[in-house]
Amino acid sequence: MKKGNTVFFKNAPRIISFAAICGTKEKEGVIGEFADIALDDDMYGESTYEKAECKMLTNTIALAIDKASLKEKDVDVMLSGDLLNQIISASFAARDYNFPFLGVYSACSTMSESIMLSAMMVNAGYVKRAVAATGSHFASAERQYRYPLELGCTRPPQSQWTVTGAGGCVIAEGKEGIKIVSATMGRVCDYGVTDVNNMGAAMAPAAADTIMQHFKDTGTSPCDYDMILTGDLGALGSRIVKDLTWEKGYDISENHVDCGEIVYNVIENEFQGGSGAGCSAVVLNSYVLSKMRAGLYKRILFAATGALLSTVSSGQGESIPCISHLVELEY
Amino acid sequence: MKKGNTVFFKNAPRIISFAAICGTKEKEGVIGEFADIALDDDMYGESTYEKAECKMLTNTIALAIDKASLKEKDVDVMLSGDLLNQIISASFAARDYNFPFLGVYSACSTMSESIMLSAMMVNAGYVKRAVAATGSHFASAERQYRYPLELGCTRPPQSQWTVTGAGGCVIAEGKEGIKIVSATMGRVCDYGVTDVNNMGAAMAPAAADTIMQHFKDTGTSPCDYDMILTGDLGALGSRIVKDLTWEKGYDISENHVDCGEIVYNVIENEFQGGSGAGCSAVVLNSYVLSKMRAGLYKRILFAATGALLSTVSSGQGESIPCISHLVELEY
Repeated sequence: MKKGNTVFFKNAPRIISFAAICGTKEKEGVIGEFADIALDDDMYGESTYEKAECKMLTNTIALAIDKASLKEKDVDVMLSGDLLNQIISASFAARDYNFPFLGVYSACSTMSESIMLSAMMVNAGYVKRAVAATGSHFASAERQYRYPLELGCTRPPQSQWTVTGAGGCVIAEGKEGIKIVSATMGRVCDYGVTDVNNMGAAMAPAAADTIMQHFKDTGTSPCDYDMILTGDLGALGSRIVKDLTWEKGYDISENHVDCGEIVYNVIENEFQGGSGAGCSAVVLNSYVLSKMRAGLYKRILFAATGALLSTVSSGQGESIPCISHLVELEY
Repeated sequence: MKKGNTVFFKNAPRIISFAAICGTKEKEGVIGEFADIALDDDMYGESTYEKAECKMLTNTIALAIDKASLKEKDVDVMLSGDLLNQIISASFAARDYNFPFLGVYSACSTMSESIMLSAMMVNAGYVKRAVAATGSHFASAERQYRYPLELGCTRPPQSQWTVTGAGGCVIAEGKEGIKIVSATMGRVCDYGVTDVNNMGAAMAPAAADTIMQHFKDTGTSPCDYDMILTGDLGALGSRIVKDLTWEKGYDISENHVDCGEIVYNVIENEFQGGSGAGCSAVVLNSYVLSKMRAGLYKRILFAATGALLSTVSSGQGESIPCISHLVELEY
């Protein structure tokens, strides 16, 4: 059932529904027409950015449950995490529900980690239905990780723009929905990047490591997949991951797509593209899964990527350890 | 395999080894003689508190692996988290190892969440051996959650003392070691407590909820267990959890023990006792599991408790959502 770092799901747990809420800037991009709700105001009627982020996550979970024609009582467990200190968006979202909550954290790779663990639990028969979800908010991320927006700091050209949005899905046993075929657990990779504005360069080695590990464990090659989707490497990071895999004999250039690179149509203030836990969460749970269900993609790899730093670790001179967890989806 | 919120492990994954490192203050208490390493200096030779915390966790993991007569390559996955923003202790500890890493977070309930998920993975055959570990450091927690120590702020009498220490264990299939019989997944409970110095009162309802859910799901009662161990409720929180369960017809007063209440022999500056993710981690992975292996306890419940707040959530006027995950152990 396991080979290398890849776990195979013989009972093929399914994504039976998915939902996404995105912010005003994200609405203009590729996910605008696929998201269930596109906000007109990034405050979402709340008094703080953090509360707005939490509300997006809470409502995304409710939407995903509702779209599966389920009720709260039908869900056995929720797996979620987010970028805020002590994952408060996820914890406070979980407070609104009566089902158990397992908090997870792997920065912007939280979407794939939560799908992976949900699939493991469903496949083993521990639970019938699990919700996996995450999100992020540009303004709450900026003031926690960088500077308060009110300061008006200039952003360097290698930087990315944290996506305002949340995405989630319901994973269940059964014959309907998008199959979760296998999952490759990521290792921490650290190539010594210390520039906190250059997450793409920091995370690319982790994405390359997990994707190549998946090929090795499953005996597949890039051409076996309709799409190899990374989380939020951005334009620069995407080029690096292609280079790193090419060096080892895997050419992913034909079918590699990065959620961060495609989430904004016009790359202007966003420089390298989108980032944040919400980036891959909204792109997967709106655009990508919709296209899969429409038959456009049959078999994809989803490898979200996370930078496991904090302001304290960077302040103490540490480089940026990164990780990428991967799930293989089929429809 | 699941009833209510409890998952039953028919293959009985085992804790085959455990290890703990504790600080100077903790050395004076009940765990002093059971910990593998008791520090002479809480800085552990590092330049910052955070680096000391990470080093404790890294070395605890190495010790647990070594005590099981295993090598790094024999471990399939590590599940860990901690109290620092973005769980940097766990992430940076994972950087030192070549096995996959799944980050988890449920504040001071991280030890039981990581054991639970490890047991799920081993029981289902996804992995052969998993490491579950967590830790905390008094000085890094104080400056992140409260005030820098240098300010010399007065502590109120309802407060607790974050334990400096780390604990971890190796969970594997096989016939040797302490059996993990079942696990009860916790729900988020929030009784509206807003006093961030009174974690015991905030967390007690979550502990009571999970413990009673376990009794209900398994058809057991308090007298079926030699010990019902909570994480870090402290003296006040322990009284509250006894009251809350007694009100619902469960008398746990005979066999309830709280790690926070027993970790310091003399309660002086620590007021209500110990707290922090390291509290239940060191008490379980030194004193309790040693006593179990010596035959003193046959069957115990371990319900670590976590307060899912952050300084931001409290600053924005939110109350404290709490959670408790539980594992049932037998030897």
